[in-house]
Amino acid sequence: MIAIIIAHKRSVKILLLLLLQTLVFYTLQSSSTFFPKFSQIKMKVAYESLAKTYTRLHNFNHLSSITSWDSSVNMPTKGAEARANALAELQVLMHEIKSDPKIKDLIAEAEQDSSLTTEEKANLREIKLDWTLSNCLPKELVERQSLVTAKCEHEWRTQRAKHDWEGFSANLKPVVQVSIEEAKILQSVLGTETPYDALMAKYEPGQSSARIRKLFGELRPKISALIREARDKQAKEEFTRPIGPFSTQKQKELGLEVMALVGFDFEGGRLDVSKHPFCGGVPEDVRLTTRYNEEDFIQSLMGVIHETGHARYEQNLPREWLSQPVGKARSMGIHESQSLFFEMQMGRSAEFLRLIQPLIVKHFGEDPAFELDNLVKLYTRVKPDFIRVDADELTYPLHVILRFEIEEALMNEKMTVDDIPRVWAEKMKEYLDVDTTNNFKDGCMQDIHWPLGAFGYFPTYTLGAMYAAQYAHFLKQKFGPAEFKRRIETGDFADVFTWLRENIWSKGRLLQTEDLVTQATGEPLNPDYYLEHLRSRYL
Amino acid sequence: MIAIIIAHKRSVKILLLLLLQTLVFYTLQSSSTFFPKFSQIKMKVAYESLAKTYTRLHNFNHLSSITSWDSSVNMPTKGAEARANALAELQVLMHEIKSDPKIKDLIAEAEQDSSLTTEEKANLREIKLDWTLSNCLPKELVERQSLVTAKCEHEWRTQRAKHDWEGFSANLKPVVQVSIEEAKILQSVLGTETPYDALMAKYEPGQSSARIRKLFGELRPKISALIREARDKQAKEEFTRPIGPFSTQKQKELGLEVMALVGFDFEGGRLDVSKHPFCGGVPEDVRLTTRYNEEDFIQSLMGVIHETGHARYEQNLPREWLSQPVGKARSMGIHESQSLFFEMQMGRSAEFLRLIQPLIVKHFGEDPAFELDNLVKLYTRVKPDFIRVDADELTYPLHVILRFEIEEALMNEKMTVDDIPRVWAEKMKEYLDVDTTNNFKDGCMQDIHWPLGAFGYFPTYTLGAMYAAQYAHFLKQKFGPAEFKRRIETGDFADVFTWLRENIWSKGRLLQTEDLVTQATGEPLNPDYYLEHLRSRYL
Repeated sequence: MIAIIIAHKRSVKILLLLLLQTLVFYTLQSSSTFFPKFSQIKMKVAYESLAKTYTRLHNFNHLSSITSWDSSVNMPTKGAEARANALAELQVLMHEIKSDPKIKDLIAEAEQDSSLTTEEKANLREIKLDWTLSNCLPKELVERQSLVTAKCEHEWRTQRAKHDWEGFSANLKPVVQVSIEEAKILQSVLGTETPYDALMAKYEPGQSSARIRKLFGELRPKISALIREARDKQAKEEFTRPIGPFSTQKQKELGLEVMALVGFDFEGGRLDVSKHPFCGGVPEDVRLTTRYNEEDFIQSLMGVIHETGHARYEQNLPREWLSQPVGKARSMGIHESQSLFFEMQMGRSAEFLRLIQPLIVKHFGEDPAFELDNLVKLYTRVKPDFIRVDADELTYPLHVILRFEIEEALMNEKMTVDDIPRVWAEKMKEYLDVDTTNNFKDGCMQDIHWPLGAFGYFPTYTLGAMYAAQYAHFLKQKFGPAEFKRRIETGDFADVFTWLRENIWSKGRLLQTEDLVTQATGEPLNPDYYLEHLRSRYL
Repeated sequence: MIAIIIAHKRSVKILLLLLLQTLVFYTLQSSSTFFPKFSQIKMKVAYESLAKTYTRLHNFNHLSSITSWDSSVNMPTKGAEARANALAELQVLMHEIKSDPKIKDLIAEAEQDSSLTTEEKANLREIKLDWTLSNCLPKELVERQSLVTAKCEHEWRTQRAKHDWEGFSANLKPVVQVSIEEAKILQSVLGTETPYDALMAKYEPGQSSARIRKLFGELRPKISALIREARDKQAKEEFTRPIGPFSTQKQKELGLEVMALVGFDFEGGRLDVSKHPFCGGVPEDVRLTTRYNEEDFIQSLMGVIHETGHARYEQNLPREWLSQPVGKARSMGIHESQSLFFEMQMGRSAEFLRLIQPLIVKHFGEDPAFELDNLVKLYTRVKPDFIRVDADELTYPLHVILRFEIEEALMNEKMTVDDIPRVWAEKMKEYLDVDTTNNFKDGCMQDIHWPLGAFGYFPTYTLGAMYAAQYAHFLKQKFGPAEFKRRIETGDFADVFTWLRENIWSKGRLLQTEDLVTQATGEPLNPDYYLEHLRSRYL
């Protein structure tokens, strides 16, 4: 059925436009399949066939991403049901395509193909991982998982506000149960050390929970100490909060200007408004969103810079590989390393604030609150509190570590859902000196991750922060610390972005995460740079 | 591959949300298949199987419609290639689904099913027509058609501005050739009188070219006479054009207010901006577009009313049948009858202008140009000119008739592409006294329809105008002419819309067009009401 485009009488009003224009693309495309020298034909055919399947999936994913963005940005309420049905239909189709039993044989055949280039081999590795993650779970489990997570997430939206732990935990138990089942199956297929490791592989393949446990275990007391010191120091500081209103229009203009400053390509993306800011769309057309609070622009401006970091990664993934797994972003941790490089390493630095301070004044007028010294204080204020998503740079990792410890124990069956509130309250008290006893809404019910069964995701936030600090350290060495600062202060970002493009963005998934970071910075993940960064900013 | 939604650190940042939420919809849906009493099971299974296939197509069409809307409204330039690939992939998939040879047998089986309800029978009829139109053409022809039309349309975009008839006609010839081949095949399958009739069936099934020839043949001299009389009358009139600028923001507010006045449901749709205004999206979420010219709001305001007519039809199609062909809009002529009822029968009437005049003043301030008498003159000004899409209500049908006569002769092989400029110039001179000799840009190269091979579409514009006049005539009888006017003047539209909803909108494709109009108005299409309307408005 073709789209009925009923256009204004005074303009195009044609039914067939879409069908015709698009069919011709397909016709032209399908003749472009590439065949190598004769002896390799069969195996090359296997690889090419896999690549073709993933190009198809890439195309369908495009529709899914754009309509999902639309759901958050444009869709009126009455469109929701039809949208959900349409997206479900597409997901089922994509799952069917990936479940084709022929794919397994094609992968095995392609793995014998010595003619594959380095990129093709990496692509095959990523195809195999993707295929494995999509195919190793029994249909019954996947369906049950869909049902229990959808119910849990849906009811969580009302239960949270009512502190209804009893109702919520009844829903969370089957989610945890099915996730453990999933984790055990993935563990046996991927050969990871623990079930939790296997879940992490969905977001951060190649990372191990033992290592994260060690990293986080060492970070935690050091950050706790840092927080105490920073709080002592800041206790004597005076600062001024800007007083609104700050019109949405002016905030938008400022945001667009700052996005342009840090290199967002407006020919390949846009900025819109949604309830929850995100970086969506597709690499060819990145859709950032933000939200405006007319009383405060300080946080949302930094949010735009954060999302622009994600966006630039997507916009600079290797164009010729975009349709293939190897052309996608390396991992969620590396993705976060880009947003946090933009937000934490550049955005909140005194140098960057000096750069954008005149823009703030240009849009909102002179105000003592906009003096550089005050802006720096606003953007580095430390205050332990309940909510992760509102946390400052210094307390944020403790929120993550707490969640990592709990979800790891849950997935490895070292604790149960019933233990969560007690353990949560204990850890919040110990790590952040915040009392969440009986405060479920602002405590263990605050995140959407667990209701959705997304165990294994949380560590990527702090991994990203560590990677970002490591890049910044490397660049400070490369350019010289003073020169690095000068570049940020003057908006002379070209070499910084070239380095990111050459070492991270353009690599896609060519390398595994550890190799990517090692090749880029000369050493594997080293948390010292993160601590060094925090110390130098907050002490 | 699931959509990677990379959300702001301070908000949802989950990979699996979409997949999980949507899979559960699918799981819940797939259990709802309905089975009737045992003896009918096999045939009912056939019908249900067809219905399921068309539900799938409906879901995929949703994605196509929303992303196509996005292409016109939001997409930055660098997104175009990936978008075209994605939409092409979807079109190929939908074509494959429809080409499944099992469908033919299922249709034959379902046709034997005596247990089908009236709605199901009508749905089966529409499924059969849709399937037939999609399947009777050889693959080679469809592919060739895609190629020649894409080339012709693409090059037309530059050739038109350069009056390059030679280049254009070289591209148009294979388009006409392949359309004739298509027409002949469709003619043999559908059993229509002429090849041209078969093409018309794609847009206006059940209508015959013989009848349109007769209708248009009778209309033409009468409208020509009307134009002369109206021009004489208007020659003595004085009127004032409003002087801008009229800010985009205010035009938008006015447009939204007028849309609300005529019942657009903003919970099930929205208004945005695009280069060429259209009514897109899906019935559950209708996406209107307009464009703003800060020098003139008069035409675009009426454009919004026109599109709202299309939108209300879509928004009020039978909800329980939306996923099936029987739940779609009846035909392009009936669709146009809704937009033209809103624009021509209501919108440009003195009564409606009296209703919205205070809104215009509210947004743009007092101005002699906004006096009711002047607004009526602005909205009923008659001036024969070159361009169809800019034509007034009275000269518009002559543009359509001219095109109908030419395209009918082309498809029935009574003339050739080389004859077009001469015949066009002759007819423009005769019908509208406009000289288009050697003016290809504003002459026979002005429309996108022929480059796209959409022969058979043009008559639906004027059919729509006639149907709209017939509804208005009926309602004037039903309510009494003075009362009908009072309702429009006071914005008391409830009964008018109830009548449209009950007689047109909610019927979908339950009835054939002729029956729909006869049941609604008590008689088949009668062009007298159209002429009567034109006479009373312009003389």
